[in-house]
Amino acid sequence: MISVGIVGGTGYTGVELLRLLALHPEVELKIITSRSNEGEAVADMFPNLRGHLDICFTVPDEAALKALDLVFFATPNGTAMKMVPELLAAGVKVIDLAADFRLKDEVLWEKWYGMPHACAELLRDAVYGLPELNRSDIRKARLVANPGCYPTAVTLGMAPLIAADLVETSNLVADCKSGVSGAGRGASTAMLMGETGESFKAYGVGGHRHLPEIRQNLQTIAGHEVGLTFVPHLLPMIRGIHATLYLKIKQQSDWQKLFEDYYQDEFFVDVMPAGSFPETRSVRGVNYNRIAVHQPQNGDTLVVLSVIDNLVKGAAGQAVQNMNIMFGLQEETGLRAVALLP
Amino acid sequence: MISVGIVGGTGYTGVELLRLLALHPEVELKIITSRSNEGEAVADMFPNLRGHLDICFTVPDEAALKALDLVFFATPNGTAMKMVPELLAAGVKVIDLAADFRLKDEVLWEKWYGMPHACAELLRDAVYGLPELNRSDIRKARLVANPGCYPTAVTLGMAPLIAADLVETSNLVADCKSGVSGAGRGASTAMLMGETGESFKAYGVGGHRHLPEIRQNLQTIAGHEVGLTFVPHLLPMIRGIHATLYLKIKQQSDWQKLFEDYYQDEFFVDVMPAGSFPETRSVRGVNYNRIAVHQPQNGDTLVVLSVIDNLVKGAAGQAVQNMNIMFGLQEETGLRAVALLP
Amino acid sequence: MISVGIVGGTGYTGVELLRLLALHPEVELKIITSRSNEGEAVADMFPNLRGHLDICFTVPDEAALKALDLVFFATPNGTAMKMVPELLAAGVKVIDLAADFRLKDEVLWEKWYGMPHACAELLRDAVYGLPELNRSDIRKARLVANPGCYPTAVTLGMAPLIAADLVETSNLVADCKSGVSGAGRGASTAMLMGETGESFKAYGVGGHRHLPEIRQNLQTIAGHEVGLTFVPHLLPMIRGIHATLYLKIKQQSDWQKLFEDYYQDEFFVDVMPAGSFPETRSVRGVNYNRIAVHQPQNGDTLVVLSVIDNLVKGAAGQAVQNMNIMFGLQEETGLRAVALLP
Amino acid sequence: MISVGIVGGTGYTGVELLRLLALHPEVELKIITSRSNEGEAVADMFPNLRGHLDICFTVPDEAALKALDLVFFATPNGTAMKMVPELLAAGVKVIDLAADFRLKDEVLWEKWYGMPHACAELLRDAVYGLPELNRSDIRKARLVANPGCYPTAVTLGMAPLIAADLVETSNLVADCKSGVSGAGRGASTAMLMGETGESFKAYGVGGHRHLPEIRQNLQTIAGHEVGLTFVPHLLPMIRGIHATLYLKIKQQSDWQKLFEDYYQDEFFVDVMPAGSFPETRSVRGVNYNRIAVHQPQNGDTLVVLSVIDNLVKGAAGQAVQNMNIMFGLQEETGLRAVALLP
Repeated sequence: MISVGIVGGTGYTGVELLRLLALHPEVELKIITSRSNEGEAVADMFPNLRGHLDICFTVPDEAALKALDLVFFATPNGTAMKMVPELLAAGVKVIDLAADFRLKDEVLWEKWYGMPHACAELLRDAVYGLPELNRSDIRKARLVANPGCYPTAVTLGMAPLIAADLVETSNLVADCKSGVSGAGRGASTAMLMGETGESFKAYGVGGHRHLPEIRQNLQTIAGHEVGLTFVPHLLPMIRGIHATLYLKIKQQSDWQKLFEDYYQDEFFVDVMPAGSFPETRSVRGVNYNRIAVHQPQNGDTLVVLSVIDNLVKGAAGQAVQNMNIMFGLQEETGLRAVALLP
Repeated sequence: MISVGIVGGTGYTGVELLRLLALHPEVELKIITSRSNEGEAVADMFPNLRGHLDICFTVPDEAALKALDLVFFATPNGTAMKMVPELLAAGVKVIDLAADFRLKDEVLWEKWYGMPHACAELLRDAVYGLPELNRSDIRKARLVANPGCYPTAVTLGMAPLIAADLVETSNLVADCKSGVSGAGRGASTAMLMGETGESFKAYGVGGHRHLPEIRQNLQTIAGHEVGLTFVPHLLPMIRGIHATLYLKIKQQSDWQKLFEDYYQDEFFVDVMPAGSFPETRSVRGVNYNRIAVHQPQNGDTLVVLSVIDNLVKGAAGQAVQNMNIMFGLQEETGLRAVALLP
Repeated sequence: MISVGIVGGTGYTGVELLRLLALHPEVELKIITSRSNEGEAVADMFPNLRGHLDICFTVPDEAALKALDLVFFATPNGTAMKMVPELLAAGVKVIDLAADFRLKDEVLWEKWYGMPHACAELLRDAVYGLPELNRSDIRKARLVANPGCYPTAVTLGMAPLIAADLVETSNLVADCKSGVSGAGRGASTAMLMGETGESFKAYGVGGHRHLPEIRQNLQTIAGHEVGLTFVPHLLPMIRGIHATLYLKIKQQSDWQKLFEDYYQDEFFVDVMPAGSFPETRSVRGVNYNRIAVHQPQNGDTLVVLSVIDNLVKGAAGQAVQNMNIMFGLQEETGLRAVALLP
Repeated sequence: MISVGIVGGTGYTGVELLRLLALHPEVELKIITSRSNEGEAVADMFPNLRGHLDICFTVPDEAALKALDLVFFATPNGTAMKMVPELLAAGVKVIDLAADFRLKDEVLWEKWYGMPHACAELLRDAVYGLPELNRSDIRKARLVANPGCYPTAVTLGMAPLIAADLVETSNLVADCKSGVSGAGRGASTAMLMGETGESFKAYGVGGHRHLPEIRQNLQTIAGHEVGLTFVPHLLPMIRGIHATLYLKIKQQSDWQKLFEDYYQDEFFVDVMPAGSFPETRSVRGVNYNRIAVHQPQNGDTLVVLSVIDNLVKGAAGQAVQNMNIMFGLQEETGLRAVALLP
């Protein structure tokens, strides 16, 4: 059994991690911290956990955390970086579900996150936890930066094409749509149901923090700079990301085969049959990424459709997948679920 | 392994049964029938099953069905009763998720379902599959009538009070609200999202088919006739039933303790702490029934709040629970899930 | 033209009032106050008003307000009572959309609202602004207490029966469901779409502030004390209230005719044909109350279904209706709209 | 008063036309036809019209229709073209809300709509009813082809840029999202709330009928062929279209000013301030198109955000706008409404 702790478990990423870990056969959840909810039973805050998890929130206690095998951080950006060095020094492995270790470039990180980085020397050591691209590094990692939700959907959707050098990379377009759970569980007017229900809008067009992360991923695959326009939108629903990707082809190819070959050994990436339209509900609550590739009218623009559940493959599920890899478990342990449809 | 078939698997009850059986460790799903979709892979119709279930719809074949241990009927009312006698004769156990065997009284059944019953002699043999009330009979049953969704939520919510003879039973009120999946997957204008989204209404006030079923349940518990007003409503959401029950007390009691005692050994009934308001999402995708009992202003009217997922505890999950009991498995086998929240 | 001001216009009641007043032919909206949004154009906060309303939020200025014909308060409870006496003294008429003047009994008010009342002497003078019951008093009123949303739906649904003394009043049941806009536009976790979407629950069963208000209304009609159980629920949608009312009859009558007669001269109350199920969307955005009365199975319990838009007939629309009456306009001026369906 | 008839009024476009015409001060609605609902009161099918419209569905009667000033067709594609020539010959003006007269090229029309055209000679005479581009022709038109919903949102969003020849037109991208009401009111499984709620997907990527219509519009503006990738998606909500448009610039310009100048005299096009994110709810129920133009990171790709209500500016509202122009009324007559928000 892996002894596990979660720092900051009161948000949507936290409760999703709890849902997955509560039934994981190789995990013993020892600690879950929340300063403001100290002493409250987790199942009182999240009644879906009643009968499954009998543990209370505690104040973060470094000594207790250091005795664990693994700590997940489900905290706001800027929190993990203050505690991670000491945990690593104590031999604890860390998976950060926030953004503290996602960018390799310290200057870029500080520009987009608007604060100095507390342990920039770890940015290079941290492994970007997208198993489909970085599995062997994750296996050896002490510190994994769990990817953002949009970056997961976009990167997996574009990777086969960019890796094969079959598309122009100067004008990539990622039109992305996310359910509201991506904005978290903090009190706000903007995310009230009265504001977000029965309506749809774009946001962050000028610059969203996932832009440099996606660009970093695509550039790593391409081996050179890429030009990307990334527009996120807010869907009037709770879970799910749908990325619609537009790429100009450089030459003709069998796109379906290209995707199927690229992902043939991936348990969690499902390349759907030609002509498919993946629905976000087909991955609701599960760790899959479903992808379809289209070449409308046989023209020079490819359209890739890529869906994930933002809280699972886009957050907590991918974190568990990373944990499984880091601890030598079968990768799908605790993640073999069927999406809730309808 | 129990060899299992499903007759009629293209509705919401069917796909939910598939979702649960696909991961059930003691079940081998051999046959799923649909005349109109013969030859189509189940996972093509329901992409959430891709990678989990590699089986195609077939035309119902009696010989093949007779070789199974158990057949589920997820068909419209009136279908199962035509096939069940022969299956029983062949030694196959049957769980009918439709209404063919729910009422004990043939005359009543024919009045409410508007057709002659094809095998009325089985109405008495069939066991009403509400494990919390009928567990020992289910254990020995060859034919189980799986309860309706509303009857499950209402009966479990009222049972402790009626069994203890602490409430008046002449004017019971059950104000019930259901998500749209309860209306099934058949093409219709009335159930379009354009018709049911962002709106709320009552229906069937004059007489819903679940009324005699609920009344039968309550009368069995009470040992005498009861008076019930049952009003179903349609919620602008997909899954979930919330029953709000109003009962006039005959004498004061410790209602919380009464409920906790009554359900103390029940795995799937969760009596929540005093003052709780169960949310339908707290049981989304799982087989639990969560209940809270209130006595507003210490007055003479009790308010019981009872929630289930209409497709799980209200249909497919309860059917699997019944199967587990019928085949001597641990009752929660394949049903130990945590509700999807948010 | 009536010169009008709104104190506190940044909530959902406020923007709805703005929507209705922007197109009202007899109103000139001169002032809208908000301390925290001083200087911001109203149409910047609420883009639906772009092109219709060219006015900015200002800090409340007593002198300016005193120069108006009418001031609406769309403020939190406890605000209006501090400013109203001075406005009335200056000859300004007032409609309070909050609860400061809804209850006649000071002790009761202070118990339910948890604060001392700043001008209890006005509680008796204030006219409860339900035109269908109090039209003649509203016509002469200086201060109108605009009713709560639930009280409007419940009172209009029960009034004909209680007035005719044809039902028992000791055990009235009002099972009510409201869209989320009823909870206002303040930042909160509980009202996030991630919390309220795709789920349903009861709340306030122990005691909601609308309980004493409804009871006061019903007792006024009955001429004696009544017993009421009131359970509010939260719907996963934005606008609309549906009240399902259960009343035990004392003798048989022609219920349909009773309702049609009672409301025959009411422009905004629509008694639907026998057997109807009013949908909340049939009043979305409009000032109507649609009602249907059922006697299931010809039993002794009547079921009345009553729907309103909580922001219109349940708040801003009723306030405009009251204004029209107070200023001698045709009652439906500015309110002749067709509900948005679908 | 203009005497008006509607052929085919039982769909969402029909009821929306009824909603708008019921309150239009210059229209007398004389006839509304539906073969299958003959004799039924319109307000029985659509209760929002109770008290506003006292008319019944009738079987189409050519003589009666010929006595009118104007006939709207709200029928499925292929119906209007069979009746229009005779009506025109009788001096009746016609606005077709379906697609029968939208394409100028008969061959193209027959390819996309899969049937021979019944009166192809009228394709050239018909005026494409997008007032912002064709106002002077509409003024003189006998037959107006009311635009599709997607084409309205996309064309208005791209027109200023293409007209100014400031963007490359070989690789235009229109990523569009529509509420479910766009799919109509016909019975179907695919559009059930159980299928479309809480989920999101693309459709018609290979070729949607609005593609040739949008391309025709853009080519008319450009004066030459254009390359367009158009991907429609289905939103889990009822009303609203959001078009996200990606265009590569040829040279730098003041994009905000370009849009403001282009639409400065347009009542129904609202160019929002720089940095805005138009929400679909800001046009719910109204005839406006709100647009914002962004140049992310000052790069070479422009992002235009364009929202309409698909049933109003995308269908019935635009039809009324066209009627107003054809009959010399002020263009906004009957259309001066404020969007329903929240």
